[in-house]
Amino acid sequence: MHNKEAIAQYFQTLQDSICQQLEQADGEGTFQEDKWERAAGGGGRTRIIQGRHIEKGGVNFSAVHGPMPEKISKALGLNAGQFFASGVSIVLHPKSPMVPIIHMNVRYFEMDNGTWWFGGGIDLTPHYIVKEDARYFHQELKKVCDRHHADYYPTFKKWADDYFFLKHRDETRGIGGIFFDRLSANDEFSKEDRFAFVKEVGELFAPLYVHLLHKHKADAYSEAHKQWQALRRGRYVEFNLVWDKGTKFGLDTNGRTESILMSLPPDVKWMYNHVPEAGSAEAQTLELLKKDIDWINI
Amino acid sequence: MHNKEAIAQYFQTLQDSICQQLEQADGEGTFQEDKWERAAGGGGRTRIIQGRHIEKGGVNFSAVHGPMPEKISKALGLNAGQFFASGVSIVLHPKSPMVPIIHMNVRYFEMDNGTWWFGGGIDLTPHYIVKEDARYFHQELKKVCDRHHADYYPTFKKWADDYFFLKHRDETRGIGGIFFDRLSANDEFSKEDRFAFVKEVGELFAPLYVHLLHKHKADAYSEAHKQWQALRRGRYVEFNLVWDKGTKFGLDTNGRTESILMSLPPDVKWMYNHVPEAGSAEAQTLELLKKDIDWINI
Repeated sequence: MHNKEAIAQYFQTLQDSICQQLEQADGEGTFQEDKWERAAGGGGRTRIIQGRHIEKGGVNFSAVHGPMPEKISKALGLNAGQFFASGVSIVLHPKSPMVPIIHMNVRYFEMDNGTWWFGGGIDLTPHYIVKEDARYFHQELKKVCDRHHADYYPTFKKWADDYFFLKHRDETRGIGGIFFDRLSANDEFSKEDRFAFVKEVGELFAPLYVHLLHKHKADAYSEAHKQWQALRRGRYVEFNLVWDKGTKFGLDTNGRTESILMSLPPDVKWMYNHVPEAGSAEAQTLELLKKDIDWINI
Repeated sequence: MHNKEAIAQYFQTLQDSICQQLEQADGEGTFQEDKWERAAGGGGRTRIIQGRHIEKGGVNFSAVHGPMPEKISKALGLNAGQFFASGVSIVLHPKSPMVPIIHMNVRYFEMDNGTWWFGGGIDLTPHYIVKEDARYFHQELKKVCDRHHADYYPTFKKWADDYFFLKHRDETRGIGGIFFDRLSANDEFSKEDRFAFVKEVGELFAPLYVHLLHKHKADAYSEAHKQWQALRRGRYVEFNLVWDKGTKFGLDTNGRTESILMSLPPDVKWMYNHVPEAGSAEAQTLELLKKDIDWINI
């Protein structure tokens, strides 16, 4: 039932459903698709939208297989063999600085020796943190987690805090969310249980983001807000290129560069030693880019 | 004579001289200085210019010392101990897409066990490659190299081609230049010889760049040229954050982030899968972003 073909098939359906919901929410943009093949086995469907509200967004599906590249087996601590990996990966950069950037990923990995696991997560990067939205976002994630295990939300929330962290800035990328990896079967969870959770995470994504998009898409903003957005996008680039393991892996193992780097924002700015005015909305956001904030009770 | 204090003193003088020449060439901008100290020992002077022709430029001096951070000793294959490192590091992003980006670095490293070496180089990243300029640039580098050893230019030119390479794009960062590292004393070269070479490289930098700046600063350009510049700046960011060892090291070992990332351009753009029109000036530049081009005889 939950063999790799069925899982990859589900991920394709998920990609279709999310693209449809995002096109509807944007109201103008449509996804352009690039199908690609991987020389060593498998391929993907990269879909890019440049719309009215979503300035640049990517919703990627891939399912690749073949002999495990040595760099990957070494990094994962696995023996050589045949692997299979499939997933959906999303980054959306909105036009308005009042709408947050979002990232989602759900993935499945399998080796021919029987090892398998699921991974994924959703995390939010507001240019301006709105506490009410942060609460809502984390509550929705917690609801899905709680339906599967009481430990899921606290464990995966902490994992996101630790993962989406710019060590060189001593800043989190945004308000985090959930992040999980290597969810396999054990005494408590069957493969079916794990897959059911991953499905719910995948299906939560579009309604969650569409809610935030509609809430803020018409908010007024100025050139100063746009500049701050460009600077925060710079931090997004720094995280993805310096710290994100998936990005580095992909670039280092001949992944499809344009699909991997679809996550990079359209217009970005770096200013030397930019420090926002004390007490400003920008400074308030910076003060909240910390690990271990209890967003639900903030 | 060539102890570490004297070398660091020379690097400070070099920083002063280069800043003065660049201010004069820009005609409007002046360097703003941030002095900083390193908790574990030493510090630096970061100088930033935002001028008329140089949109964003940094000319950094640093001299740091203390117990060797473990990550560094491991990466360099050295035993633990006290280290000293000093250098000048420069990146200039011009306003005009017709003027190239340039990078220069000269550095000295020493361990308390007596190990020492010089490193450095100059490399050029034109947004549009002009063969005549590429020839001039490499000829000037070769002249300095040839005064010290016939092998220097061919060896260090190849080193730059290999180092300033974006593997995930199969592109060089620009037209290269020279790159060298771990130049220590041997049968052929004394410490004085090595230092004399490094000095000449450092002193070549300003006149070389000022020549190219004056040659192209008044060239006409359009919005399309500016867009291409922003895309090429994106590649510069990709190189610096994904592949540049110095940047990664600095960020990973609690270097001063703002001084390290002064190299990042002011306004940058990423577009999904941008491919320039066949035969365009942009496509011609892309075709020349290859290793092993004999720029002097092109």
